Amino acid sequence: MIYLTRRERFNAAHKLYRDDWSVEKNEAVFGKCANANWHGHNYEVFVTVKGEINEATGFVVDLKELSIVLKNKVVDPLDHRNINLDVPFMKGKMASTEILAIEIWKEIQKEVEALGCQLHCVKVQETENNSVEYYG
Amino acid sequence: MIYLTRRERFNAAHKLYRDDWSVEKNEAVFGKCANANWHGHNYEVFVTVKGEINEATGFVVDLKELSIVLKNKVVDPLDHRNINLDVPFMKGKMASTEILAIEIWKEIQKEVEALGCQLHCVKVQETENNSVEYYG
Amino acid sequence: MIYLTRRERFNAAHKLYRDDWSVEKNEAVFGKCANANWHGHNYEVFVTVKGEINEATGFVVDLKELSIVLKNKVVDPLDHRNINLDVPFMKGKMASTEILAIEIWKEIQKEVEALGCQLHCVKVQETENNSVEYYG
Amino acid sequence: MIYLTRRERFNAAHKLYRDDWSVEKNEAVFGKCANANWHGHNYEVFVTVKGEINEATGFVVDLKELSIVLKNKVVDPLDHRNINLDVPFMKGKMASTEILAIEIWKEIQKEVEALGCQLHCVKVQETENNSVEYYG
Amino acid sequence: MIYLTRRERFNAAHKLYRDDWSVEKNEAVFGKCANANWHGHNYEVFVTVKGEINEATGFVVDLKELSIVLKNKVVDPLDHRNINLDVPFMKGKMASTEILAIEIWKEIQKEVEALGCQLHCVKVQETENNSVEYYG
Amino acid sequence: MIYLTRRERFNAAHKLYRDDWSVEKNEAVFGKCANANWHGHNYEVFVTVKGEINEATGFVVDLKELSIVLKNKVVDPLDHRNINLDVPFMKGKMASTEILAIEIWKEIQKEVEALGCQLHCVKVQETENNSVEYYG
Repeated sequence: MIYLTRRERFNAAHKLYRDDWSVEKNEAVFGKCANANWHGHNYEVFVTVKGEINEATGFVVDLKELSIVLKNKVVDPLDHRNINLDVPFMKGKMASTEILAIEIWKEIQKEVEALGCQLHCVKVQETENNSVEYYG
Repeated sequence: MIYLTRRERFNAAHKLYRDDWSVEKNEAVFGKCANANWHGHNYEVFVTVKGEINEATGFVVDLKELSIVLKNKVVDPLDHRNINLDVPFMKGKMASTEILAIEIWKEIQKEVEALGCQLHCVKVQETENNSVEYYG
Repeated sequence: MIYLTRRERFNAAHKLYRDDWSVEKNEAVFGKCANANWHGHNYEVFVTVKGEINEATGFVVDLKELSIVLKNKVVDPLDHRNINLDVPFMKGKMASTEILAIEIWKEIQKEVEALGCQLHCVKVQETENNSVEYYG
Repeated sequence: MIYLTRRERFNAAHKLYRDDWSVEKNEAVFGKCANANWHGHNYEVFVTVKGEINEATGFVVDLKELSIVLKNKVVDPLDHRNINLDVPFMKGKMASTEILAIEIWKEIQKEVEALGCQLHCVKVQETENNSVEYYG
Repeated sequence: MIYLTRRERFNAAHKLYRDDWSVEKNEAVFGKCANANWHGHNYEVFVTVKGEINEATGFVVDLKELSIVLKNKVVDPLDHRNINLDVPFMKGKMASTEILAIEIWKEIQKEVEALGCQLHCVKVQETENNSVEYYG
Repeated sequence: MIYLTRRERFNAAHKLYRDDWSVEKNEAVFGKCANANWHGHNYEVFVTVKGEINEATGFVVDLKELSIVLKNKVVDPLDHRNINLDVPFMKGKMASTEILAIEIWKEIQKEVEALGCQLHCVKVQETENNSVEYYG
């Protein structure tokens, strides 16, 4: 069993806000992250897969194929987008880093496993100080 | 003459868009940066000052004082904000990295010089691949 | 179950030295780390917590609250201090990265768990080449 | 139980190529990594060991001794070398990051354990976007 | 006048070797960089241009167009190549970082200036410890 | 004319303190940097030299020789030392980053120029947020 990690990046806007809460409660709970006009981040996503090594290639997975899955399912829907408004798989959900990591896992799991390996971890790095890891 | 650089960070939303252009022209010129619902970045600002060394302290400038100027004039107005909508000194201007560097220079020049040194460079790093430097 | 990591930083002096050993033995075992007049590092601490996501907020823990705990219990006691001389929870202990990670764990565990999550890992990065992880 | 990680670096050439495949098949499977005249990387290796802390020193392992093992068994054989042609423990094997991590594990396991700790992980970082971890 | 920097990356093999010198002299002068079977690096190229800001766009240069020039003239010829053997503009030249920076400048100057700005600097980073800058 | 930069690192203790000032004045001016029992940093030094390229080697300077100068004159005197107490060329001087950059320049200038190039810049990075550059 061996683990391989691929990093992808996307730049997106978001806010942390509940429509069923007052402005005051949103600010009390989410602070400046609740700013009505949005803010944004350079997000990094680290996707780790695991599996047995293919004897012919020495690969656990073909990185080009993994990167295509991540481009189609993660980077294209999220890059230069508003996470709250533009991303189908985040519609109606809190745009926290935690939820984002879980929803990215759900988006890619089947296609990653179709490449012949298992999905092990989705890590989302929001800033140099904050990151989240989800293991399914 | 010696040069000192202080890094500050802010996370903000923006878009590149002209209201006096059609949607099609905006997309042709600005590509995905024109996304109507915004996107965002973890911006880094590197402010370089220059001057003579104070013999008593060994400092060209007191870093705490420089950091307070940058907090008041750069980080507080920009962090967790929308550059196009929320930032007084960017109102009515293109929210490109170039314009942002120039406007930050204008915002801080007087207060930095009041600390007894000269402003040498404002560098804005938008992503790990793109940055802009302005020398006045 | 989801994992969230917060990075904090502090700059401190220390040495590796046992008073019950001769100068020669200290130098033989600890090398230049035994320098009598101390040396120092820009330490980075990565604290990872785990738990269930709060449905209302999308958070495993409120990052502001976690950061306040880390400021009070880690950064304030260690930043711009001498680990051997100034830090109550390191008194009488070897100032190795390993011991530091364990003692930070002990300092923060109760307060982190009072935030509604579990403490998973304390990682201390001493230089770009050396780090230690403690999982309790 | 505590975990300590040491980073080492080496710069090497390699290619991904099977002599028992046609040029066309090699290019179809390995893409530009199959370039006949080689390419290369600044590799980073992160070796993680685990064990109990020595009460006298506060160390899980003496970093100087660990670094000597890694210099002798990893850096010297690989640095400024061709992984396919110059490295005895890679002869006749695919020079993928996966295989490299496994073979480094085999090379260092006994000597690391002779230092009084267990080998936990060998991580090889090939580029800022790609890395592999092997846990034995 | 404002300065904009774009980073691109390529992974390549090379060696430092003169055919008109003996093996011994090559090793004496170039050390392990003379290894007959090559070694390699993850090179980073930082290209800085300067010019006036376009009032309509807020750009000194269109980053997409600059990136296309760098892809065609720098990344495609160098990535996953052997600098000594595969790169037309390095044929018959020493594959030092210095020469590489100068030859990249010559390759891109005209096309960069055709975008309406001036070429200011080509920086080539060979390792985290070594880099070269050329200003024409 | 071409510019080459070499990075070296050292870990050291220091404090900012004047014996001819009261404790109160030291704390008022230098804040936590005046901590009596020292603090410390992982310092990075970037030394930039400039000159013409040697036609035979393609080098502006032999990096091995430059690194030996920096090891002898910068890293060995400063690494795992107390800048205020242990470093001959800093005796009696403020241990600010500014003064450190200037004194490193004085220490290395002659030996760097004996290698056949000019010293262009000494940059000292104290933390990820603060750095100083000196150009003579």
